[in-house]
Amino acid sequence: MEMNRRKKKVVIALGGNALGKDLHEQMIASHRTAKAICDLIEEGCEVVIAHGNGPQVGMIQNAMNELKRSDPERYITVPLSVCVAMSQGYIGYDLQNALREEMLDRGIDLGVATVLTQIEVDPDDPAFRHPTKPIGPFMTKEEADKLVEERDYDIIEDSGRGYRRVVASPLPKSIIEIGTIKSLVDTDHVVIACGGGGIPVFRTKGHHLKGAAAVIDKDLAAEKLAEEVDADTLIILTAVEKVAVHFGKPDQKDLDELTVQEAQKYCNQGEFAPGSMLPKVEACMKFAGSKPGRTALITLLDKARDGIAGRTGTRIHA
Amino acid sequence: MEMNRRKKKVVIALGGNALGKDLHEQMIASHRTAKAICDLIEEGCEVVIAHGNGPQVGMIQNAMNELKRSDPERYITVPLSVCVAMSQGYIGYDLQNALREEMLDRGIDLGVATVLTQIEVDPDDPAFRHPTKPIGPFMTKEEADKLVEERDYDIIEDSGRGYRRVVASPLPKSIIEIGTIKSLVDTDHVVIACGGGGIPVFRTKGHHLKGAAAVIDKDLAAEKLAEEVDADTLIILTAVEKVAVHFGKPDQKDLDELTVQEAQKYCNQGEFAPGSMLPKVEACMKFAGSKPGRTALITLLDKARDGIAGRTGTRIHA
Repeated sequence: MEMNRRKKKVVIALGGNALGKDLHEQMIASHRTAKAICDLIEEGCEVVIAHGNGPQVGMIQNAMNELKRSDPERYITVPLSVCVAMSQGYIGYDLQNALREEMLDRGIDLGVATVLTQIEVDPDDPAFRHPTKPIGPFMTKEEADKLVEERDYDIIEDSGRGYRRVVASPLPKSIIEIGTIKSLVDTDHVVIACGGGGIPVFRTKGHHLKGAAAVIDKDLAAEKLAEEVDADTLIILTAVEKVAVHFGKPDQKDLDELTVQEAQKYCNQGEFAPGSMLPKVEACMKFAGSKPGRTALITLLDKARDGIAGRTGTRIHA
Repeated sequence: MEMNRRKKKVVIALGGNALGKDLHEQMIASHRTAKAICDLIEEGCEVVIAHGNGPQVGMIQNAMNELKRSDPERYITVPLSVCVAMSQGYIGYDLQNALREEMLDRGIDLGVATVLTQIEVDPDDPAFRHPTKPIGPFMTKEEADKLVEERDYDIIEDSGRGYRRVVASPLPKSIIEIGTIKSLVDTDHVVIACGGGGIPVFRTKGHHLKGAAAVIDKDLAAEKLAEEVDADTLIILTAVEKVAVHFGKPDQKDLDELTVQEAQKYCNQGEFAPGSMLPKVEACMKFAGSKPGRTALITLLDKARDGIAGRTGTRIHA
């Protein structure tokens, strides 16, 4: 007898654990992810989905580089923004099919659509001078040195796990296709948008958009999306059930609830790992602080239903 | 004072000349194509766009093959259906941007969206036993022989221009994302759908869809799309202004108008080249015969405006 309960509009950010690192993992992971998303729909949520693409866009760019190496006369270098566009097709195809199947299995009568999405970034964003976002597979030192020489890539050594290419990760300014996303949400669609953080573009003269050699953080893209569709909740589904302070230490403390001020204090104290938990918490703080009544939730992919029902996860509010 | 003039709903099929053969050509061609499409919008058309992907999907699959060759332990073979999904992102990105820019330049206030689209095909379609659709670049005999040996590809010698891979080209049965496409058309969007003829999928047990190793003919996909959105006109924009009989001979005769019966007679007489003009004429015949009042038009990309106004092109009707 909850006829009048308003649906809660949520934007879900999916990361590596929801998509896997390669084609085979992606097909398996997307089915598990579809279950978590359908749990949220059954809990009364209207959902919009954003996702990352680190391993996938790296794989695509490596493939395009190998193609050029195999026949340098015939092929030109494919810009990173074009690789992001391809990755939206690659990931959206699996994710929308897994969702379609799971929804039909549960008798959920909604459409599902993948929308090719561009996000405007600022050419003066300081991120372009300090690339930090790892993409593609781990490499040996020899493979890394070769890419530095051949393509002038920026490479980092990633906490003992090997070498990885890093690219700029500028802040999202606005979503070009937001009108399309809203039209589909309003006509009963589960929408997959801002894939891989969105195709990063600069606005140039007139109305022109130009692709940027960057990958936007998917949690920050999801946050922008949540603001622009006027969501009630931003949900970041990840590999931990709750955000913790003193993480991995004997006095680790899991957090159930945080105000934006408390979260900021922990950020300042360096409690959250850059490139891992820090951007997630920052995205949540930004969303929770953007308008009264908005909350953000970080929890485990498989705990989405318990999370939205308030039984687990870490909730961040104003 | 034409306030009551109903908009004409048209589906446009774009081929190789509208998109170019590589990334560089595509960026240039898509601007020219956007002009032709905006001409149609200014003539009072509500447009939905389908397009081919022969060179693009071949390039993507070659890149994925080169990647696997570079590191066979790390990478798996990427199915053709996944490459089609990537090509929809690749082409849609350029095409929707060129359209967006041209529409803004002309003060046309519509959204533009690329929808990832799957099309159901029949696993028993005889096309799977006789691959005919060329994809990817032209190759030398040595390159072709290597692919036959390594990957068991089907290769043809293409009228003296070199060797090309061919894949199955089954008939489109139904468009999985048709509801999404209609929602966007109804909310004032120019929709790009069925890219590369759509991602070909089989229906298997339950609701499951499984990718097929095939490429659907883009003219037949556009025809299916035109039927399913209940279009008034199917427009195939190509490299000739009019369909001709005795093509390339001294008595070549350009055709202004054709009934389905007349077109069928010419098809039976072998007037149209298979894989070139024949599938275009067949798509037009199918559409014109599908419901009273439907017409199809074949003309040059740059003559779209004159064509819809009835000043040029070849018109096929019941």
